[in-house]
Amino acid sequence: MTSKTNPGRFFEDYTVGDVIRHAVPRTLAEGERAMYTALYPQRFALHSSDAFALWCGLDGSPMDDLITFHTVFGKTVPDVSLNAIANLGYADGRFLQPVFPGDTLRSESEVIGVKQNSNGKSGVVWVRTTGINQSDEPVLSYVRWVMVRKRDPEAAAPEAIIPDLIEVVPAADLLVPDGLNFDDYDFASAGEPHRAADYAIGETIDHIDGVTIEEAEHMLATRLWQNTAKVHFDATHRDDGKRLIYGGHVISLARALSFNGLANAQCIAAINGGSHANPCFAGDTVRAWSEVLDKAEVAPGIAALRLRLVATRGRAFALRGDDGKYLPDVLLDLDYWALMPA
Amino acid sequence: MTSKTNPGRFFEDYTVGDVIRHAVPRTLAEGERAMYTALYPQRFALHSSDAFALWCGLDGSPMDDLITFHTVFGKTVPDVSLNAIANLGYADGRFLQPVFPGDTLRSESEVIGVKQNSNGKSGVVWVRTTGINQSDEPVLSYVRWVMVRKRDPEAAAPEAIIPDLIEVVPAADLLVPDGLNFDDYDFASAGEPHRAADYAIGETIDHIDGVTIEEAEHMLATRLWQNTAKVHFDATHRDDGKRLIYGGHVISLARALSFNGLANAQCIAAINGGSHANPCFAGDTVRAWSEVLDKAEVAPGIAALRLRLVATRGRAFALRGDDGKYLPDVLLDLDYWALMPA
Amino acid sequence: MTSKTNPGRFFEDYTVGDVIRHAVPRTLAEGERAMYTALYPQRFALHSSDAFALWCGLDGSPMDDLITFHTVFGKTVPDVSLNAIANLGYADGRFLQPVFPGDTLRSESEVIGVKQNSNGKSGVVWVRTTGINQSDEPVLSYVRWVMVRKRDPEAAAPEAIIPDLIEVVPAADLLVPDGLNFDDYDFASAGEPHRAADYAIGETIDHIDGVTIEEAEHMLATRLWQNTAKVHFDATHRDDGKRLIYGGHVISLARALSFNGLANAQCIAAINGGSHANPCFAGDTVRAWSEVLDKAEVAPGIAALRLRLVATRGRAFALRGDDGKYLPDVLLDLDYWALMPA
Repeated sequence: MTSKTNPGRFFEDYTVGDVIRHAVPRTLAEGERAMYTALYPQRFALHSSDAFALWCGLDGSPMDDLITFHTVFGKTVPDVSLNAIANLGYADGRFLQPVFPGDTLRSESEVIGVKQNSNGKSGVVWVRTTGINQSDEPVLSYVRWVMVRKRDPEAAAPEAIIPDLIEVVPAADLLVPDGLNFDDYDFASAGEPHRAADYAIGETIDHIDGVTIEEAEHMLATRLWQNTAKVHFDATHRDDGKRLIYGGHVISLARALSFNGLANAQCIAAINGGSHANPCFAGDTVRAWSEVLDKAEVAPGIAALRLRLVATRGRAFALRGDDGKYLPDVLLDLDYWALMPA
Repeated sequence: MTSKTNPGRFFEDYTVGDVIRHAVPRTLAEGERAMYTALYPQRFALHSSDAFALWCGLDGSPMDDLITFHTVFGKTVPDVSLNAIANLGYADGRFLQPVFPGDTLRSESEVIGVKQNSNGKSGVVWVRTTGINQSDEPVLSYVRWVMVRKRDPEAAAPEAIIPDLIEVVPAADLLVPDGLNFDDYDFASAGEPHRAADYAIGETIDHIDGVTIEEAEHMLATRLWQNTAKVHFDATHRDDGKRLIYGGHVISLARALSFNGLANAQCIAAINGGSHANPCFAGDTVRAWSEVLDKAEVAPGIAALRLRLVATRGRAFALRGDDGKYLPDVLLDLDYWALMPA
Repeated sequence: MTSKTNPGRFFEDYTVGDVIRHAVPRTLAEGERAMYTALYPQRFALHSSDAFALWCGLDGSPMDDLITFHTVFGKTVPDVSLNAIANLGYADGRFLQPVFPGDTLRSESEVIGVKQNSNGKSGVVWVRTTGINQSDEPVLSYVRWVMVRKRDPEAAAPEAIIPDLIEVVPAADLLVPDGLNFDDYDFASAGEPHRAADYAIGETIDHIDGVTIEEAEHMLATRLWQNTAKVHFDATHRDDGKRLIYGGHVISLARALSFNGLANAQCIAAINGGSHANPCFAGDTVRAWSEVLDKAEVAPGIAALRLRLVATRGRAFALRGDDGKYLPDVLLDLDYWALMPA
């Protein structure tokens, strides 16, 4: 066998300043939207209905923001995650403009930090990834850092460069999609009466429902974003014969469940950070709760709610144990900004 | 935890004459059609092919009538079924015009009857639900009645109002979609040579094939219609750890299977009534048979066949036992009118 | 029960020269494309992105060639495979023009050969199937032969007519889709740097990844092509309670996996032959490897690679045992021509 396949990049292959153009641009359309609705209990009205989106000043219903995220992320996997040991975190994620059916997305990542681990066998790489549409306009930008194996443990360590990352995207930086307004917002159509003013900082919301995950579902979802990381698909890859569920599947599941109590949090404006606290497997019943972390008015009539979204295996409202570590049934701890009527 | 989530309506919350506008309008498009074809063995030519639909006088292939039904029904779940103990029946369902890709549907229900049960703990509520498109035209109307818990068992009983329901939609009331004609109907393309004249009242038809259901399939289907009733998704909800399959999944499966023997029964004009006789679970192999109950000519060259469609677990051609109750392997007993070449 | 369902054709029902028009034309659109991406790890850029397809001179991204194949094939099942004992082979498959979203396909088969088996109980039937679009233009043509039961073992044997089949579609016959050119081909977007000149005849390529198949996935896929052969859907049909996976599911899985190492083999121009060497069942982890059998330049800048694509259960690089028979873990041995930059 010759090996014409991409072996993936090792720690030594990342140099700060390098820009990686990820392969396979992707056109998204009505099919991806329908699949998304079948895979997740998605009911946010702006992403369900052209009519509702027109009432909100848009030309039609944009793709769910997480469709954009998963598509842009999926393209980075062959270049960033193939030899990764761990996905360490996200920061400074900004949704820059909506994606509509028919748009084509591609991804680029700039290496913005590297730091070899003290064991000499691996290192941490920081990249800023940008999703770009067919008009060469950025639609999403975020920082991600991963731990990556070295090809040669004897290779010299590069100069450590650790990027200065913000903990929270400032409310003043949040972008409101062109034309979006909630002046004639129809709360009855959206499903709940609560506007941003009805939420208190510190308030927690139980999203009530639970969804038991099947192998077929998470594999369909992950492939839909052309994310082909072995660990999600190959039951013979891990010693325990389990397929690890793509973390983004849990994000979408939890976000969709959050409709119960946050039905008017129509779009995601920023992702401040996120941890996949514990692995998720088929058979798990996923539930979710949210905590309101902050609020801000970002445009006339439009507020941003900063939310902690927690996904759990079964019903579990505690986040961390006495040791400060995530409890074993916490799957996701995501910090994001959502836009809603003020 | 604060509770901003919709607790659902209890029996006391329904007053005859009230109109409930259900949340989240939904745009249906080519994606939903493809998913429907993947979920059910759907082969009716009018719903498979734009070319065939053009030959029949339409502007393109309309969405399967059951896509319309499931979408309209799904929207009512948070307001009608959340505290329901049982789904008691359907009546007087009328398909008023076809839905095409790009149309947006919403649902409204008028409360048309209430009757408290003698136990004082629950009552029966009748609603007439209407599906409405983006031009405010009705596309579907049907009556459904459910048994709903009371919030307060001590609350006084309302005056009992039981609506007068017809048992069968009169053939004279059946609507033929604008433009539809079977003058140049291509039986070879449709798959079978039988026109309405070839069916005898009382005739029964075995649809032959069986489909074994998987958990992933019925959950994908039910979410596709934004029906998020817990019992379909949460394996920890019932004591037996089983997820109950949405009754509409069985309807669609049986109707799709009925292609074998009823390939020319191209569209559903009315649903006269239906019972989900026994629950269906993943692992069941579903089969179906039909009985011709009546026939009528509804337009030149277009006939309606009134059909009993029975879905069974395994092969089972008897409907009821000596006690008059449905036999345990009967899943569905549906009474509907379909349009076909006269 | 009356039987209005199609009993399928028996050996006696095929006469050389007969043309069978298969039922149910089908419109393919963005939904089918999204489903295909969710079902298979499909990443070929020409089928993922309108933008990439425009760069290659097309008006938009065509449907994956195997979507065309499965749709055309699925339509033949009720007329060709219903009473088939075995699917014996394919030959001389030619992709005649691309299919775009919105196109409607139908299928016709001409009987080109019959030969009764010496046991008198069955016979072999050869058909040439053509897929035709809504403008009555052929999009695909291939020969397939199956072993079919006789209705009446006493019926006289027809004169044996065995068609003269070519083993390989000559490179000179391969059609390049109208407008397709690789002059400004973007290897970085496509995912790998290898052009046809980089492949040597005899070279073998390990496609590395494996995918474990679930029941829900292969049933969704097979229904999507309106292929309703019992054996794929009914767990009670076989004595062992197993659902046999549609051979085309394995073809699509293997072709999608072949992206790793053959990312620039953008479209299938011909299928020279193929064997479903062993049955595939849910739970199998499918892997694939390819062997370069031949190369040819078919247009300026466009080369064809003749490839053997082998799908295996688990990792298995040997094809046949000492007895010349396929080894038990070989699922598919497909011989095809793909187009790529020269």
